[in-house]
Amino acid sequence: MHKGRMEAFSDGVIAILITIMVLEFKVPSEPTPAALCAMAPVFLGYVLSFVFIGIYWNNHHHMLQAVDKVNGGILWANQHLLFWLSLVPFVTAWMGHSGWAPFPVACYGVVLLGAGSAYAILSLLLIRHHGKDSVLAKAVGRSGKEIFSVAAYSSAIALAFVDTRLSGTLYVTVAVVWLVPDRRIERALAEQ
Amino acid sequence: MHKGRMEAFSDGVIAILITIMVLEFKVPSEPTPAALCAMAPVFLGYVLSFVFIGIYWNNHHHMLQAVDKVNGGILWANQHLLFWLSLVPFVTAWMGHSGWAPFPVACYGVVLLGAGSAYAILSLLLIRHHGKDSVLAKAVGRSGKEIFSVAAYSSAIALAFVDTRLSGTLYVTVAVVWLVPDRRIERALAEQ
Amino acid sequence: MHKGRMEAFSDGVIAILITIMVLEFKVPSEPTPAALCAMAPVFLGYVLSFVFIGIYWNNHHHMLQAVDKVNGGILWANQHLLFWLSLVPFVTAWMGHSGWAPFPVACYGVVLLGAGSAYAILSLLLIRHHGKDSVLAKAVGRSGKEIFSVAAYSSAIALAFVDTRLSGTLYVTVAVVWLVPDRRIERALAEQ
Amino acid sequence: MHKGRMEAFSDGVIAILITIMVLEFKVPSEPTPAALCAMAPVFLGYVLSFVFIGIYWNNHHHMLQAVDKVNGGILWANQHLLFWLSLVPFVTAWMGHSGWAPFPVACYGVVLLGAGSAYAILSLLLIRHHGKDSVLAKAVGRSGKEIFSVAAYSSAIALAFVDTRLSGTLYVTVAVVWLVPDRRIERALAEQ
Repeated sequence: MHKGRMEAFSDGVIAILITIMVLEFKVPSEPTPAALCAMAPVFLGYVLSFVFIGIYWNNHHHMLQAVDKVNGGILWANQHLLFWLSLVPFVTAWMGHSGWAPFPVACYGVVLLGAGSAYAILSLLLIRHHGKDSVLAKAVGRSGKEIFSVAAYSSAIALAFVDTRLSGTLYVTVAVVWLVPDRRIERALAEQ
Repeated sequence: MHKGRMEAFSDGVIAILITIMVLEFKVPSEPTPAALCAMAPVFLGYVLSFVFIGIYWNNHHHMLQAVDKVNGGILWANQHLLFWLSLVPFVTAWMGHSGWAPFPVACYGVVLLGAGSAYAILSLLLIRHHGKDSVLAKAVGRSGKEIFSVAAYSSAIALAFVDTRLSGTLYVTVAVVWLVPDRRIERALAEQ
Repeated sequence: MHKGRMEAFSDGVIAILITIMVLEFKVPSEPTPAALCAMAPVFLGYVLSFVFIGIYWNNHHHMLQAVDKVNGGILWANQHLLFWLSLVPFVTAWMGHSGWAPFPVACYGVVLLGAGSAYAILSLLLIRHHGKDSVLAKAVGRSGKEIFSVAAYSSAIALAFVDTRLSGTLYVTVAVVWLVPDRRIERALAEQ
Repeated sequence: MHKGRMEAFSDGVIAILITIMVLEFKVPSEPTPAALCAMAPVFLGYVLSFVFIGIYWNNHHHMLQAVDKVNGGILWANQHLLFWLSLVPFVTAWMGHSGWAPFPVACYGVVLLGAGSAYAILSLLLIRHHGKDSVLAKAVGRSGKEIFSVAAYSSAIALAFVDTRLSGTLYVTVAVVWLVPDRRIERALAEQ
């Protein structure tokens, strides 16, 4: 089975998700700087989620470049990842409109944790399908980024009920850590 | 006529449908667990429809892999399928926001029945276009899944007026039955 | 310049347009057949526009199959067509929500007339770019469908102020006339 | 790394942005010409933004035709451009619904300035990646259009607080200057 249509479908869904988040910017009723400033929490959430979804697209892009073939299980693991990503616009909007209240901030972390787990499952299935000695396995096998992210998301969920600024800082930290595309795969492909 | 652009257009429409359903999640006014729990019926409908549209994409993907060429009639049969699928977000939202009331639950079944029929018509036209001895004909020819689905949808529509939980159970059952991608086509392609 | 990305971009825009129209189906507040029936004017408009946009996609698809190359002017003529098509969801929703009132029904005709003219301009530019003896020129050169459509749209705009059912009938008639994909191009390609 | 998926993703995002702007056309409550006329400021903003996003798509299309390969930094520069473009529907709607009030008109200029700068950064990174003697470098290297645009946007932002019609005129002027696709690249490709 070819990976082409799975790539195209994922690109489509991710492109739509990243774009419809902007529909949550309700037009302010007053044409003033104050009205714009009142949107700051919504805007900050938007920027964060735009970066996160961009990271997913980027890493998904990189990972699938090292992939040759897919099967039914992989298609569904990919669908599972898209499901979690599809919840990002909702939790982003809720977090923003509530002014980063504790519970929505924790929910944001739950969705990111779900997406991160779904990504891990997808990469495990891809590695199993390509064999332990494949380029993909070598590339994805050695990293602590995933473990760090899971720990950070879990902490952020708990810390949201202490101080949401701590959670926000953790979300930004994870984003920064991932911003660099997966050099491991580029390196593994180059070493080949 | 090449199948490429029909595939691309269908992928686009299905990707948008699966994504805009999330726009029906209205941001709760309170940042509390209770407000999130109040969304449970909407969320359940979303998960169900996400899985259903995912199944259609997956099987559409599989079926078109066994297809060589299309014609004008097939393009319109495909458009007909997309029409029924385009109604899924509406009935999903209505079912959810009404708290799974009988009439919207029945309407949900009508739309699924319409989509299922449209899919059957599309596969019949594709088989007629490729001949009785084609890979596609052999692959699609032997299955009771379609008949089971039609029976289940019809029952679910009627049972919605008795107890909507029965309808819900039937919808979930059909989804589970279809979750496995069409092994018949994979097998027929492999036997070739 | 390759036509590939223009095709892909047009497919994307048309897929989104045909899909976001469904967002105009506001979830009825009552879960009753009466509430669904009250949506009939909106639904009829949706079906009509779904068919019209499907026709444009289909014919656009056919026309570009006979095309080899594009230039800057053609890209903008295509953009002009997409502009008119982008207004279809708005006039469809207005027509529907107003219960097919005269002025919105006339506006619907104006948008269809604009889209039709834009399509004609695009095909003229494509023919000029490919030469009078090209497959495209022969294929598109001989037809009265365009002239009929322009006459029907113009009449429908005027008749909307007499009886909107006359306009509706004319819109449906044009849709039926165009439903058959452009056999001329298929024939010209086959004759080649 | 291939440029294909970056092109496809950008096309997807841009197609969605140009299309969802139409969702800002709220259906008028009255089916009258007066109700339509009241939408004139919203409609004018829509036309302007449709043309601007069309220009970005067109020039992005042209620039990437002269590109062979991309890297992680270029992917993020592209993402940065898409971020600014994603804000266009919001500022367009705000400008329109406020009746072109000074502050939203200035914000519109800020977003265009951001998008213009992001485009410039993207082209600089692409040139650095392809070398000073590449087709791309020669093609993009000689032009005053970018400098003119930056000056015009900056002036429009300031002048919004004097008279928004001056800003509007400047926006239209920039659009007209860019409407012609980038002949420099076409010429450079032809000279090759």
